[in-house]
Amino acid sequence: MEKIAMLGGGSWATALTKILSENGSRVHWWMRSKDDVQHLLRTRHNPRYLSSVAHDLSRVLPTTDLEEAVREADWLVLAVPAAFVQSTLDKLGRDELKNKRVISAIKGMIPGKNVLVTDYVAERFRLPHTRLGVVAGPCHAEEVALEKQSYLTIGSPDADLAEEFCQLLRNRYVKANPAEDLDGIEYCAVMKNIIALTGGIAHGLGYGDNFQAVLVSNAVQEMRRFVHALNPQPRDLSASAYLGDLLVTAYSQFSRNRTFGSMVGRGYSVKSAQLEMNMVAEGYYAVKSIYELNRKLQVSMPITSAAYHILYEKISPAIEIELLKEKFK
Amino acid sequence: MEKIAMLGGGSWATALTKILSENGSRVHWWMRSKDDVQHLLRTRHNPRYLSSVAHDLSRVLPTTDLEEAVREADWLVLAVPAAFVQSTLDKLGRDELKNKRVISAIKGMIPGKNVLVTDYVAERFRLPHTRLGVVAGPCHAEEVALEKQSYLTIGSPDADLAEEFCQLLRNRYVKANPAEDLDGIEYCAVMKNIIALTGGIAHGLGYGDNFQAVLVSNAVQEMRRFVHALNPQPRDLSASAYLGDLLVTAYSQFSRNRTFGSMVGRGYSVKSAQLEMNMVAEGYYAVKSIYELNRKLQVSMPITSAAYHILYEKISPAIEIELLKEKFK
Repeated sequence: MEKIAMLGGGSWATALTKILSENGSRVHWWMRSKDDVQHLLRTRHNPRYLSSVAHDLSRVLPTTDLEEAVREADWLVLAVPAAFVQSTLDKLGRDELKNKRVISAIKGMIPGKNVLVTDYVAERFRLPHTRLGVVAGPCHAEEVALEKQSYLTIGSPDADLAEEFCQLLRNRYVKANPAEDLDGIEYCAVMKNIIALTGGIAHGLGYGDNFQAVLVSNAVQEMRRFVHALNPQPRDLSASAYLGDLLVTAYSQFSRNRTFGSMVGRGYSVKSAQLEMNMVAEGYYAVKSIYELNRKLQVSMPITSAAYHILYEKISPAIEIELLKEKFK
Repeated sequence: MEKIAMLGGGSWATALTKILSENGSRVHWWMRSKDDVQHLLRTRHNPRYLSSVAHDLSRVLPTTDLEEAVREADWLVLAVPAAFVQSTLDKLGRDELKNKRVISAIKGMIPGKNVLVTDYVAERFRLPHTRLGVVAGPCHAEEVALEKQSYLTIGSPDADLAEEFCQLLRNRYVKANPAEDLDGIEYCAVMKNIIALTGGIAHGLGYGDNFQAVLVSNAVQEMRRFVHALNPQPRDLSASAYLGDLLVTAYSQFSRNRTFGSMVGRGYSVKSAQLEMNMVAEGYYAVKSIYELNRKLQVSMPITSAAYHILYEKISPAIEIELLKEKFK
């Protein structure tokens, strides 16, 4: 029985906990909220996310004690919001992950540092990248709760690590495939939120399905240029870990990034959209990180640039999307 | 003033007539129905498709006389259903298109013959392919009626022809780009209907958005393999003429192919789904043509094969999608 420390209490953490525990792993499930842990221990349900899922408490062990969750684990799965990765992991000693393997399920970069989550983990805990992996969709957590057929890709430079984690995931409704391109998959997972957000802005401005399809097509090309500049190697961006993940986000009616973008497109200020939603969409930070990273690379990234100008330089959404429109083919 | 013969009375013909005529071309608009022509002449509106659009009858000349429509035209635009191309064009003499250029807006192949519309035209009228082109989306006709920003690609081996037709299309809300890959664009436009139909079948069986995203990702790879086998040349399937056109169809709630597939997935027989819809979805024929063409090529085409088995060999949709599921990554 593999022992897994799951970090995070959101919908994606809940879905992965369900998959892993039902498959036989023991999941030490760390979350910040004492109330949520107590609710879980009392009722077997996470009160706030995928609350229909009844967890098997003989294998799912909710706790607010991070060290306890991590201590015995073979694997660490990171599923906290990107903004909290640093503050969460900084509670752990630098040697505490020495013999563990770490899988990131986070679709964002460390804010302010502009580094990938796996790169941050590697540096802080002095782990080689062969001990690290990333899990990518296309996968709405809500559909995992409903046990609808889903596909996951585990990206890691260590093929054995990727395959072993795939084996922990595979079941009747989950197919998991290993891949070597950790960086490319992780960057694309970050960028897809930028695309969903920008698609939302265009939607809020009244652009329709024809424009959305062209936006996504151009986005694939923008993502390809960017990851190729960072890490040139042959990769097929139409594989489901890249394109599929982008589609499930960009065409989701429930995407928080799209909803946020749509409010901005309709005229809300960034701040009032965030207040109204009572949260910050991951894409908001992703735009800044990718845009700043690209200052050195100077790749042509019209979509990311437009989103940056709108969100961080207060340029009118109508003007920026109009300019974007001219650049698209 | 360019003179265009528009053949067909459907939504796509109506949208193209609007774009071309508003841009200054004279459109000789042939359709079969006398009633519709009379309605148009009386009210300026096509009674059945995009009926909100008021046509300018000084430049839009509806007629049921095919020879009259074609006689003076510089360009022929084909926008009849694929099933009627042959019977329509066979009314014209073999030399009647001698000095004309022909653009196909049809997303289907000649049933029974398994040839592309442009190949059929080239052979029947002894025209070189440099006189031929194809117009591809991503473009819902309904959004053209609403003047929402849309993108069209004109594929032709003759770059001048492609650019000239682009110029006839470009306006405030339409961007048009030339491309050389006539065959690839035309085949992909046919295949996208197969994907939308198969997506509908999966939807009808209860598969969700995660599966749909994986289906579309795998579809891009299937389309790439197939067009490469037929006509190997470098092409980027993530360009909007390929991927964008696929997305706008596969993610459309209004796609007839998806609706038809969905009924089959829910248990309707092919015949009763067709009766209920009072029409035959283009994808139904496309499946047969592409599947039969592939008998010689033997490309791996799991999606097309599954659709063929379901529609033409009465294999259970549940079994075929289950098998497909295993093949996807």
